[in-house]
Amino acid sequence: MNPRSASRRSSSAIPKLVLASRSPQRRAILEQLGVDFEVVDPQVEEIRSAESPRVLVEENARRKAAAAAGELVLGVDTVVVLDGRIIGKPGDGSQAREHLEALSGREHEVWSGICLSGQVSHAVTRVRFNPLLDEDLDWYLATGEWRERAGGYAIQGKGAALVAEIAGDYWNVVGLPVAELNRMAPGLIRNCQGLQG
Amino acid sequence: MNPRSASRRSSSAIPKLVLASRSPQRRAILEQLGVDFEVVDPQVEEIRSAESPRVLVEENARRKAAAAAGELVLGVDTVVVLDGRIIGKPGDGSQAREHLEALSGREHEVWSGICLSGQVSHAVTRVRFNPLLDEDLDWYLATGEWRERAGGYAIQGKGAALVAEIAGDYWNVVGLPVAELNRMAPGLIRNCQGLQG
Repeated sequence: MNPRSASRRSSSAIPKLVLASRSPQRRAILEQLGVDFEVVDPQVEEIRSAESPRVLVEENARRKAAAAAGELVLGVDTVVVLDGRIIGKPGDGSQAREHLEALSGREHEVWSGICLSGQVSHAVTRVRFNPLLDEDLDWYLATGEWRERAGGYAIQGKGAALVAEIAGDYWNVVGLPVAELNRMAPGLIRNCQGLQG
Repeated sequence: MNPRSASRRSSSAIPKLVLASRSPQRRAILEQLGVDFEVVDPQVEEIRSAESPRVLVEENARRKAAAAAGELVLGVDTVVVLDGRIIGKPGDGSQAREHLEALSGREHEVWSGICLSGQVSHAVTRVRFNPLLDEDLDWYLATGEWRERAGGYAIQGKGAALVAEIAGDYWNVVGLPVAELNRMAPGLIRNCQGLQG
């Protein structure tokens, strides 16, 4: 590569992506994609209820993105929805068991709101759980993986063993709707590659 | 834990799982699930064609499992199928480009055959690709990730950016149909946990 092209590359017009999220899962997905980004922990008051899951996650994504400075800020909010009701992060093991018992053998939805530089959208993925025996619940609760997870499970971890099938964007269930990000900003991923990308 | 229960645990009736596969992806999934297993590289002649993808992947899974010694042997074979035609591992970058151009903007199927201790089954997941521009192909081919991958992409890597949505078992697309394994042998995953599991 000659010096001119190297220089053009480093002075690219695309500002560095800022991820306004505490979530290690979202960080891991952007790293997997080779995206060069920085992380800001957004200090925001999130809303807990709204007239629909879509309104809730889009509003929270907007608030997170608005709390971080930058030209290219990404805010995301993800919830688990069963029968129209939001299943939050369990407060303790017994609540985690209740959540997983409610999800057992049934289909639920995972909704994410996504806000990129002020533009807002959402994604929804349907997830069907295996019917879970008491032994399955005992095993999964003992992993501790339910902590800090919407719905009380991590599909990208041992929670993979709880899931029968999904329909939609898998990465949305992990916490970042990659396909929707691609629709909102085509080429963003390939243009935000780190030097090792 | 008293010595008696420790001893009962180590003399468990479940033999150690043997994975008859070279695939690092299959190993990674079993590790993620906390399964204690060993790996054998099966030296087998795989069939390249059959009357259907199901017959092909089930026969190859059976051959791989039969090539390894053990009481609990797992053999798996995975192919990408577009319009009924098998899209293999690309031999070079230009063939990888052809494969990805064929998959661009369309839906294909990922079939796995699975053989566990002589019992044979299969799983199929539908995958829809984003419409890919030349720049997308240039970017993805430059990652080198297409090498040794059925269909020329890795959904668990940067290939995540190529995918619009899936329907079925995500892990099947990576290379191990976890949900089907659970159906064939309920409790296998929780009963094959390593000491750190």
